[in-house]
Amino acid sequence: MEIKILKDILGANEQIAEGNRQLLDSKGVFAVNLMSSPGAGKTSLILETIKRLKGKTKIGVIEGDVSSSLDAEIIGKEAVPVVQINTGGECHLNANMAHSALSNMPLQDIELLLIENVGNLICPAEFALGEHKKVLISSIPEGDDKPFKYPLMFHEADAVLINKIDLLPYLKFDTQAFSRAVKGINEKVKIFQISCVTGQGIEQWVSWLLTQMSKRQS
Amino acid sequence: MEIKILKDILGANEQIAEGNRQLLDSKGVFAVNLMSSPGAGKTSLILETIKRLKGKTKIGVIEGDVSSSLDAEIIGKEAVPVVQINTGGECHLNANMAHSALSNMPLQDIELLLIENVGNLICPAEFALGEHKKVLISSIPEGDDKPFKYPLMFHEADAVLINKIDLLPYLKFDTQAFSRAVKGINEKVKIFQISCVTGQGIEQWVSWLLTQMSKRQS
Repeated sequence: MEIKILKDILGANEQIAEGNRQLLDSKGVFAVNLMSSPGAGKTSLILETIKRLKGKTKIGVIEGDVSSSLDAEIIGKEAVPVVQINTGGECHLNANMAHSALSNMPLQDIELLLIENVGNLICPAEFALGEHKKVLISSIPEGDDKPFKYPLMFHEADAVLINKIDLLPYLKFDTQAFSRAVKGINEKVKIFQISCVTGQGIEQWVSWLLTQMSKRQS
Repeated sequence: MEIKILKDILGANEQIAEGNRQLLDSKGVFAVNLMSSPGAGKTSLILETIKRLKGKTKIGVIEGDVSSSLDAEIIGKEAVPVVQINTGGECHLNANMAHSALSNMPLQDIELLLIENVGNLICPAEFALGEHKKVLISSIPEGDDKPFKYPLMFHEADAVLINKIDLLPYLKFDTQAFSRAVKGINEKVKIFQISCVTGQGIEQWVSWLLTQMSKRQS
């Protein structure tokens, strides 16, 4: 019975997500669902991406948090449209929340929508929002065993960014073993090593993002 | 309707948790529910705690993970009884899972039970397991804004351990601002600064733990 209810919820979510995707497509907006553990660097990556793409593509941001609007305030300083979603206890965004946020976003003025999901490696993987790509940020301090512990998240991602690579000298993290584990779960995934502090790898990430956008539009 | 279902689930969980607590009390076992983001250092803290308490108190460990038994294998090398719970997708342990694990734990042979919850700052805070104390590990790389984003978790904790304090020179983290934010949510909480790498603060944590155990027994 419980499983049936869950299936219904996920089914209804998929339908709303499909509606969101059609709306985004009709406006020519490419959407990315950014997921990670708390504090892995989603907001920092959004800030770096905005900086690199200034004058190249028009960006909007949806900020998802259980509570607070701290990140939306930080992003808001970059003069891009931002909509905050507070889930009020829910541990993930869902398509319905994304739908409400989209109705408050000036879609005609943007080309790329970055959606920062709630910091959580589990449930966000199950709920489509209408995004075109799912991107997972994994960070060096979290340890290289995370693909084994949160396999669904790594399975669903189109790209995995290994963030905080500048901390590698101070921590035990085997990037080769990590990448092998990720590829074992998700053969086609693209993996980048990045640092939002030193800027390492950000150019490659942004270039990949622009390629995905142009592929979708052509 | 959805809220009603949720209340029923939480109500049923509380009842089972109370049964677990009575079972633990009848066997003289003190139980701690350890919660944190993925990779904040729950397993490392358990290892350090086992090391410091060797010969002082008999420890058992319950390991909760969505998937894998990596941590149980690591803990198992320490010659303490370990039971692994795989939640199979669920983002938190619940009292029923804890109940099953307790029936596989030699309670007559232990005095302290460390329960490692699933790595998640949201839902584990809502589900009592029958523990006597809730302990939250927050780590320096996660950033000092987490109390504002995950207030329930910080509200529920009896102690907050700021782990990976050895990384402070390499990261922006204001320990005073963090502690003020935590105390703003939870006035009575005990805060420790620790490092499982250098051993800083572990003695104080273990001493607090032993005091809580003796308070409960007297």
